Amino acid sequence: MLPASIQKYLESHREEHLGKLFELLRIPSVANRDDDACARAAGWLAGYLEQLGLETEIVPTAGKPNVLGYLHSSDVAPTLLIYSHYDVQPPEPLELWESDPFEPTVRDGWIYARGADDDKGQLLTHLMAIEAYQRTGETLPVNLKVFIEGQEEIGSPNLEEFIATHPEQLSADTALISDSAFFADGIGSITYGLRGLVCVELTLLGPSRDVHSGVYGGAITNPANALAKMIAEMHDSSGAVTIPGFYDDVVPLSDSERAQWSALPSDESAISAEVGVETLGGGEEGYSALERTWARPTLDCNGIVAGYTDVGSKTIIPAQASAKISMRLVGNQDPEKVVAGFKKFVADKTPAGIKANLTVNAQARPVLLAVDSPAMNAATDAIREAFECETLFVRCGASVPVTELIQRIVGVDPVMMGFGLPDDRLHGPNERFRLDQFFRGAAAVAAFMQNLADRR
Amino acid sequence: MLPASIQKYLESHREEHLGKLFELLRIPSVANRDDDACARAAGWLAGYLEQLGLETEIVPTAGKPNVLGYLHSSDVAPTLLIYSHYDVQPPEPLELWESDPFEPTVRDGWIYARGADDDKGQLLTHLMAIEAYQRTGETLPVNLKVFIEGQEEIGSPNLEEFIATHPEQLSADTALISDSAFFADGIGSITYGLRGLVCVELTLLGPSRDVHSGVYGGAITNPANALAKMIAEMHDSSGAVTIPGFYDDVVPLSDSERAQWSALPSDESAISAEVGVETLGGGEEGYSALERTWARPTLDCNGIVAGYTDVGSKTIIPAQASAKISMRLVGNQDPEKVVAGFKKFVADKTPAGIKANLTVNAQARPVLLAVDSPAMNAATDAIREAFECETLFVRCGASVPVTELIQRIVGVDPVMMGFGLPDDRLHGPNERFRLDQFFRGAAAVAAFMQNLADRR
Repeated sequence: MLPASIQKYLESHREEHLGKLFELLRIPSVANRDDDACARAAGWLAGYLEQLGLETEIVPTAGKPNVLGYLHSSDVAPTLLIYSHYDVQPPEPLELWESDPFEPTVRDGWIYARGADDDKGQLLTHLMAIEAYQRTGETLPVNLKVFIEGQEEIGSPNLEEFIATHPEQLSADTALISDSAFFADGIGSITYGLRGLVCVELTLLGPSRDVHSGVYGGAITNPANALAKMIAEMHDSSGAVTIPGFYDDVVPLSDSERAQWSALPSDESAISAEVGVETLGGGEEGYSALERTWARPTLDCNGIVAGYTDVGSKTIIPAQASAKISMRLVGNQDPEKVVAGFKKFVADKTPAGIKANLTVNAQARPVLLAVDSPAMNAATDAIREAFECETLFVRCGASVPVTELIQRIVGVDPVMMGFGLPDDRLHGPNERFRLDQFFRGAAAVAAFMQNLADRR
Repeated sequence: MLPASIQKYLESHREEHLGKLFELLRIPSVANRDDDACARAAGWLAGYLEQLGLETEIVPTAGKPNVLGYLHSSDVAPTLLIYSHYDVQPPEPLELWESDPFEPTVRDGWIYARGADDDKGQLLTHLMAIEAYQRTGETLPVNLKVFIEGQEEIGSPNLEEFIATHPEQLSADTALISDSAFFADGIGSITYGLRGLVCVELTLLGPSRDVHSGVYGGAITNPANALAKMIAEMHDSSGAVTIPGFYDDVVPLSDSERAQWSALPSDESAISAEVGVETLGGGEEGYSALERTWARPTLDCNGIVAGYTDVGSKTIIPAQASAKISMRLVGNQDPEKVVAGFKKFVADKTPAGIKANLTVNAQARPVLLAVDSPAMNAATDAIREAFECETLFVRCGASVPVTELIQRIVGVDPVMMGFGLPDDRLHGPNERFRLDQFFRGAAAVAAFMQNLADRR
């Protein structure tokens, strides 16, 4: 049970905590930008952790720095590793934002900003919970190891090496990650399955410059048409992915999972409304939308660019065409094998007159966790206390690479207890986080720490 | 025969004429830009024509203005309509230019600038020829009607209406257009066939915003993947275009044309080298590259854009995807019927969960001209005089909409006598025009006017 003093502290410091979040949201810490914003966000976090009494360090990587914090409470308390990330997705396209993505605003009970939910808002729920214990004089029920990275949104390229080389700094009894969402408004969730990820960039090179589509049209292979053909051939007519070996290691959905999931309050017309389409579509035949996103691998083109894209027409055959493609993987697909299959696909399908360049931008393994552990129970109880609602165990179509790394290298199953809502517009324009989820999230994190210790 | 005084005048004023061309090339008169550069180019040309003794007017259109010039030489002289355009293609991608596209430079005997060949350089050959007659006191052998438009590179959207409503200003015995190229260095050409053109822009709309490719991948139709599939389906496995009815009105190549063309000094490896590809490809099976570009219709994607296209990866399903597509038509395809077929294709192929928007940006009919007229003979003789070389009658894969309009509305078959070379990089970076072609081109235009009058 959460001590009343903690509950009271959190309720009486809401304005101050919102101000803290705003400070962090104003730092445009986009991981794939070559500026100092990530370093500033890391510095801001280290400063806050120090104010909370944690011993902190900022550890440089080949990319953006990591922030570490340690606090020893007692020799009998369990050690909790808290992971989060301070980097955010790029805000583009800017013209679709109703307010500046890096100048947070509150409208109708929601905080609007890039990172409001993913993951600065959720990250601060942890720090607010710690603050409540430190400021009220209650004994912190756990020993803390805080680890905040800065490259999650670009696939955490330096994470595996860091975790593997810092066992002392990260070893723990339990880990907590808040980078996920409620199943629905009023229904909490703990995520026990995540998809893996492979991100590639495929560039087809044709003529050495843009050439006249009248003079050369018909004589030379057009890289834009060739790229369209290759992307089209990545799916067959039933919506299955055609990359060689893609499904070899996929664990089929069990009949019991399919039965359980079909009973979930999941409404395909609600998903359509959420993303603004008339009807769902485009997926693998024979599976529901929930099954496709939770338990089946997919391939999506995230971006394409070729030739002339400005106003009006320009009658050229472009010199090159590029596509960014992400593949979401499920247990037990191996990213390395998928990349190898993709390379074979490109080699097989590149037409005469075209050269292909392939870059691998990110990789992450899929994850499946046990749902019946004491830590999982501590989390469902914490959500009940803070939100007065029940919790479903769910899977998620997205990838949180750190989960698999903590499971495999640190050797503990992380608890993925998230406080977002399904329509928080992660990665898109007008990302948001509901104020009430933010404040109650802090109480849930505090209750989780308390429950962990109480049941030890 | 060209009078010696004219020849001498042109040879002794080369530096001055190059300076004139540079002035015009420095005006960035890109037709699809919303600035005053086209108006400045029109003003510059009207000023030059006035200096040459022509009565001039600048006539506004719904887009960029037209420049008209008239000069009555004698009641017995034939009337020559000269058509050209002062607008140029956009210079992008700028980073591939070795020098500023709008600051012309001469390197190794070539003028480098956007429009150096297409069509400012070729346009000035006409004005230099007129200047030679006017400054030397020789009697101009023709009555002149000069018509210079400013929207050729965007498909001449206001041209048909203008020609149809200005019969008095444009009526003539013969028309001359210099917007084409020699067959090869040292082999002149007169173009007797041009492909028509339909330019469309197809936009597929999916979710109302970019959404997370993990959360929604598999559940919703990805507009980028859908667009790739639709573009891929525009060709079948033999390279033929699949737009409904596309080939219905295509005049097949005759056996005699195929025999004549196969005897032409056309070298497919030279075309490959010209555009910088290892091998030609991508066209309709059963036809040579020359046949495909001269006498077969084609479909090319000129540009695509969707989703995230900056550095690294961004794991989204984009809200929309757009492609610019040009179709080159041959006799007797009708652009309206092709557009109707394209609309049907889009309606048939648009998948569930996607809305399609289609815009038609440009249309032009294909052209075939008789090769045995007195005007054609006047032109081949003029090329022999000015360049000391022979001339082939050729077709061209590109489109010059005005040719068909002059043929159909003014009622005369234009002579397409051009002075570019095949590797002048039209529409691409580092467009160029050989100095010698520029200077001799002026002599050829003067000789053409003389021959027209001499043979009347």
